[in-house]
Amino acid sequence: MREEQISTVVSVAAVGHAKFGKRKTEGIRELGYEAVSDLFQDLNMNHTDIDATVVGLAADSFSGQGAPAALIVDEIGLAEKPNIRVESACATGTAAIKTAYSMIKGGMHDTVLVLGVEKMTSISSSYATELMARAGDLRWEFPFGCSFPGYYALMASAHMDKYGTTREMLSSVGVKNHFYGAKNPNAHIQKEIGLEEAMNAVQIASPLNLYDCSLISDGAAAVLLTKKDLARKITDIPIDIIGIGSGSDTMQISSRRSLTSLVGTKRAAKVAYHMAGISSQDVDIAEVHDCFTIAEIMAMEDLGFYPPGEAGQAILDQQTYIGGKIPTNIDGGLKSKGHPLGATGISQAVEIFKQLRNEGKAVQVDGAKIGLSHNVGQTGQFVNVVLYKRGD
Amino acid sequence: MREEQISTVVSVAAVGHAKFGKRKTEGIRELGYEAVSDLFQDLNMNHTDIDATVVGLAADSFSGQGAPAALIVDEIGLAEKPNIRVESACATGTAAIKTAYSMIKGGMHDTVLVLGVEKMTSISSSYATELMARAGDLRWEFPFGCSFPGYYALMASAHMDKYGTTREMLSSVGVKNHFYGAKNPNAHIQKEIGLEEAMNAVQIASPLNLYDCSLISDGAAAVLLTKKDLARKITDIPIDIIGIGSGSDTMQISSRRSLTSLVGTKRAAKVAYHMAGISSQDVDIAEVHDCFTIAEIMAMEDLGFYPPGEAGQAILDQQTYIGGKIPTNIDGGLKSKGHPLGATGISQAVEIFKQLRNEGKAVQVDGAKIGLSHNVGQTGQFVNVVLYKRGD
Repeated sequence: MREEQISTVVSVAAVGHAKFGKRKTEGIRELGYEAVSDLFQDLNMNHTDIDATVVGLAADSFSGQGAPAALIVDEIGLAEKPNIRVESACATGTAAIKTAYSMIKGGMHDTVLVLGVEKMTSISSSYATELMARAGDLRWEFPFGCSFPGYYALMASAHMDKYGTTREMLSSVGVKNHFYGAKNPNAHIQKEIGLEEAMNAVQIASPLNLYDCSLISDGAAAVLLTKKDLARKITDIPIDIIGIGSGSDTMQISSRRSLTSLVGTKRAAKVAYHMAGISSQDVDIAEVHDCFTIAEIMAMEDLGFYPPGEAGQAILDQQTYIGGKIPTNIDGGLKSKGHPLGATGISQAVEIFKQLRNEGKAVQVDGAKIGLSHNVGQTGQFVNVVLYKRGD
Repeated sequence: MREEQISTVVSVAAVGHAKFGKRKTEGIRELGYEAVSDLFQDLNMNHTDIDATVVGLAADSFSGQGAPAALIVDEIGLAEKPNIRVESACATGTAAIKTAYSMIKGGMHDTVLVLGVEKMTSISSSYATELMARAGDLRWEFPFGCSFPGYYALMASAHMDKYGTTREMLSSVGVKNHFYGAKNPNAHIQKEIGLEEAMNAVQIASPLNLYDCSLISDGAAAVLLTKKDLARKITDIPIDIIGIGSGSDTMQISSRRSLTSLVGTKRAAKVAYHMAGISSQDVDIAEVHDCFTIAEIMAMEDLGFYPPGEAGQAILDQQTYIGGKIPTNIDGGLKSKGHPLGATGISQAVEIFKQLRNEGKAVQVDGAKIGLSHNVGQTGQFVNVVLYKRGD
């Protein structure tokens, strides 16, 4: 048994996804149930074979429900199994995946359901923005008017200043992500946008405008993690987790050495690539954290897909569309698919799972073998990079 | 390296504790810093040798600080290392320990700081009670006036009815815990109470009165977990984690089969004892979750120390004092030491660490080798039992 444990490969055996969007009548329990029901569609296992649940939910304050994991787990019929909630701001989803992975690898549980849920639209969008801003330093940042569009606007300005990144490059991120989001039935906004339209949208925090900002969405997503030998009993094509890395940075953005890069992403990527024994060149498809368009540009550089200052032009040149160098956020990303905080990192895993299994239908990267998920909390205080591989 | 990993024993190498109480001028960052400073007293290691931090903090709503882990980790000088927040209501502290244990055992990190923090007194105690009540079902329980004193009052009534448990027995739990809390410099209320006084205190939720209820406290506690071979470099007497079990139950108390026992505790204990290869008879000292006096009575039965219905009399007979069958909550417990939610399960580990190392001074269980920590979230939706052993 011990021999078995060390060589344990942890795989994704199944995935589920709720519709992202403004879900007027659904609360956290219905959203969680929707994702888990989707996961169990045609699945060759009983839900009582799940040993534990890890719930990713970023902020109690949105729904007002304290200790939300127990409520959600009860709704999906798993009240009798252990559960835990994990939070890392907007990187909550991948933090939940890392926790479940560790539990399986460490021999605590064999089969763990990872369920990310967030209900954000039952309050006004201005109050939601305030609640998110409260993840900035409540003593030294929030009272002085800092909010997340503002933080990322500082980064965009610095990046434009240092590298000559343009308004057009920023907007091309949104154009691409809406192009793909329009094809994703689970996306919050299924609508293409034009480059001119994106460039001239109403300003939010200069230089970022409306189409540079991701969405405030309700949603849920789920993945079932288990040991590979057990996964094989459930599915013919388990997808293995081959690398997980985490990185962090100072709480206050004013303490950073640079605003044109997230050190947390670099640290997380380094660990994940090392663990998997691969480099960025081996990645076939990427899901990166485009909470703002500038964030996707920085991610593509920090993850090693492009040298510093060169991602903007590459995205404008459509190198990150299907058929280009590295197809990125082809599910619409946070920008068009939506960003229900706790669900986002898990939704990335769902898309990668489908792509690596060649189940993308009209939107498919042919022959994709390795996928990368990049998930950022706050302004880089929590970053997780997860690498997935279609097994042999 | 792989060989090493399977045989990994995870040990507690050091502990730290902040003063529990109404800490007027300290917020979550100062409380966390205080516990970690205490941990580093005389410690033979550099804080940069810590690979990651797991923060236990139950409710954002108390302090209003979103994503609090990054803030706290920055304050203690670990902003550059990965961190994550874990939440399981009042069992948050042990959930953080379980997560860190899994990360080490699973090979993600070697040395993990586990830090539990809660700031509860910056809002009124009635609002704090409401915030905690919001951890009940927000649709089907909270709107009808349910709160935690009420839930546990139902259990107390049922236990009294079924087993003849008396008012005197309930109060004897409070008397014992205040007896020991009076000797603990970190306790919130360092004051003994008499049995008559405890029996006649103002009613909160019949049959529970003021001295049946634990405290609303600010506080923090920390443990350093690492592989045993690394722990030996830091300390002569590492304390090993030999068992961790988790249990759960239905969200709504109305769905329970029984109100005189927590099924979650029984499930968690069974797993933990099995993992450790011991029984309740092998435990020398226990820290149990006395959020209400009835909870300690039920815990002593559910953990196997006494048959159902017999713990009340045993406690009244002082069998759970030092010198009795199983010394329990000799640091004052939640009742007298206080209950800063995220810190509680970690504070239990701190007390057990000291006892197993014979560092209890005036309050010491002679020759204690095995300690048990029992931590409950909500009304048993989250229960963790952790077993610690003084290594050879």
